[in-house]
Amino acid sequence: MDQAIGVIDSGVGGLTVAHELMRQLPKEKLLYVGDTLRCPYGPRSEEEVKKFTWEMVNFLLEKKIKMLVVACNTATAFTLTELQNHLDIPVLGVINPGARAAINATKNMHIGVIGTDGTIRSNAYPQALLNINSKIHIDALACPLFVPLVEKGMLHGYTTFQIVSESLEPIRQNNHIDTLILGCTHYPLIKDTIQQFMGNHVSIISSSEETARETSTILEYHELLYKGERIPNHQFFTTGELEIFEKIAKRIFNSSESNAQSVAIEHTVIS
Amino acid sequence: MDQAIGVIDSGVGGLTVAHELMRQLPKEKLLYVGDTLRCPYGPRSEEEVKKFTWEMVNFLLEKKIKMLVVACNTATAFTLTELQNHLDIPVLGVINPGARAAINATKNMHIGVIGTDGTIRSNAYPQALLNINSKIHIDALACPLFVPLVEKGMLHGYTTFQIVSESLEPIRQNNHIDTLILGCTHYPLIKDTIQQFMGNHVSIISSSEETARETSTILEYHELLYKGERIPNHQFFTTGELEIFEKIAKRIFNSSESNAQSVAIEHTVIS
Repeated sequence: MDQAIGVIDSGVGGLTVAHELMRQLPKEKLLYVGDTLRCPYGPRSEEEVKKFTWEMVNFLLEKKIKMLVVACNTATAFTLTELQNHLDIPVLGVINPGARAAINATKNMHIGVIGTDGTIRSNAYPQALLNINSKIHIDALACPLFVPLVEKGMLHGYTTFQIVSESLEPIRQNNHIDTLILGCTHYPLIKDTIQQFMGNHVSIISSSEETARETSTILEYHELLYKGERIPNHQFFTTGELEIFEKIAKRIFNSSESNAQSVAIEHTVIS
Repeated sequence: MDQAIGVIDSGVGGLTVAHELMRQLPKEKLLYVGDTLRCPYGPRSEEEVKKFTWEMVNFLLEKKIKMLVVACNTATAFTLTELQNHLDIPVLGVINPGARAAINATKNMHIGVIGTDGTIRSNAYPQALLNINSKIHIDALACPLFVPLVEKGMLHGYTTFQIVSESLEPIRQNNHIDTLILGCTHYPLIKDTIQQFMGNHVSIISSSEETARETSTILEYHELLYKGERIPNHQFFTTGELEIFEKIAKRIFNSSESNAQSVAIEHTVIS
C-alpha cells in the first residue's frame, strides 16, 4: 500500500523509532512530526499531552497515513487507548513492544523501567508487564533530566555521564534488575552511557527497535505493506527550530542502512 | 479472554513454539495438536498438507480457541493465506516472524534458510524476505533428514553431528551468510549442533521464539489476552505414539519457567 506510516513524538526521541523503521522496512515511507516546540511532554498534565497529541495526529491524518506509530512513551501512556478507539487505521504505541521484549530478555524476573515523570506517573509499564506476567518484580524510576539533555544534543561527555550517574544511582544501588527498559524514545541516544553506568550484566531494552519490529508485524497482518519497489522519500516536520532537529537527525540517520533514503526536514505549525 | 490459544504442528517441532508461548505468556492456556502419525509433512504434496492441516484446525475449532498458531513451516507455506481468509480468529504462521527477525539481525544482508523439502520448494521464506527488503541475498537449502532425526529423539551425539554436517556443508561452503533461519520448528531442538557446525559468527534465528513474541503482539492488539490470574492447564494431543511425544515434550518443558504449569498429553484421532 502506497501510503506512509505516520510517526509522532514530542521531539527528536521518535527519530530512533524512525531510524529502526527505515532499517527494518526499507520500502516504507515515513511522515514524522516532532513537537519540539512544546517538548518535553513528561512534566505536562494528561489533558495537555492529549491535546498536543491529537494536534499531531490530525496534521498527519490530513496527509493520509495507513498506520500511526506513537513514538513517545508519555503520549502512549495517556492517549493510546483513545487513539485506537477513534481512528480507523492501526495504532501502535511504544510501551507494549518494550514490555514484551523485556519479558523475553529477563532471566531473574527483575525488570527496571526508566522514563519521564509522566510515563512513570502513569504506571503504564508496570501495568503492561504485570498484565502479561504477574510474577515480575519492577523498579520504576523517573529521569526528568534525560530528555532536555538529548534535545540539547548533549549525547556524550563528562556532564552527560554525571547526569546519567546521579539519575540512575537509585536503580543501580538496588542491584537486582537484569533488564532495564528505556521507557522513553529519547534514551537510546544515550544508551552507551547508560550501559556503561549500569554494567554489562544488565540487558538494555530499546522500545524503539521493538516498536519497529511490531510495526512490521501489524502492517503485514493487515496486508498494508508496500509491495512494489521504491526508495521512499520521507518527510519530517518539527514544530521547533530546524537546526538542532537536523543535527540530531543527521547523527541518527548517518548510517549505511538509511544512506540511500531521502529525508526532507521542514518546520511546521500544528496548533 | 478465557479461551485457549490453538497450536498445530506436523509433530513435536511445534513444542518449541509452545514452550516459548508458556515462557512469554505464562497465563495463557494452550491446546496443541501434533500430527505425529503422518509426520513429516515436508515431502508431501500441497493438497495432502492442506487436508491434514484442516483436520487439525477443525479438531481445535470444536474446542473453541481464540487464536491459531500454525507452528509448522510446511503447513504455514501451503495453508496460511487460506486459513486467514476462512477463520474469524487471528491466525499466525511461523514464516513471517522468522523473516522479520532475520532482517533485524543480518548486517551483511546475506541470509540462509534451511527447512523441509516442502518449505524450501514453496519459496515462502525468500518471498517473505524479499517482500520486506529486495536487496537481501538468500541461500535456501532443504534438510530432509532433520525432522526424522528429531522425531526419533536423536538430538545429540555422533550420528546427529554427522547428519547435520553433511546436510549443511553446501550452505557453509558458500561462507557468505551471517544469519541462518531455522525454517522448521523441529530444528531448534538441534540448534546447538547446527551452531557448532556453522560457527559463532552466524546468528541462528529460531522462528519458534519469534512466533511466540508475535502471538503476544497479536493477542494484545485484538484485546484477547487473559486478564485475570491463573496457572493454566495445557492440553496436548498427538495422533501418533504417546511415548516418544512425551519424551521430547519432557525434555523441552523441563525448565524452570514451565515447571509450574500443568501439561496433559493424550492420544487422539483427527482424520
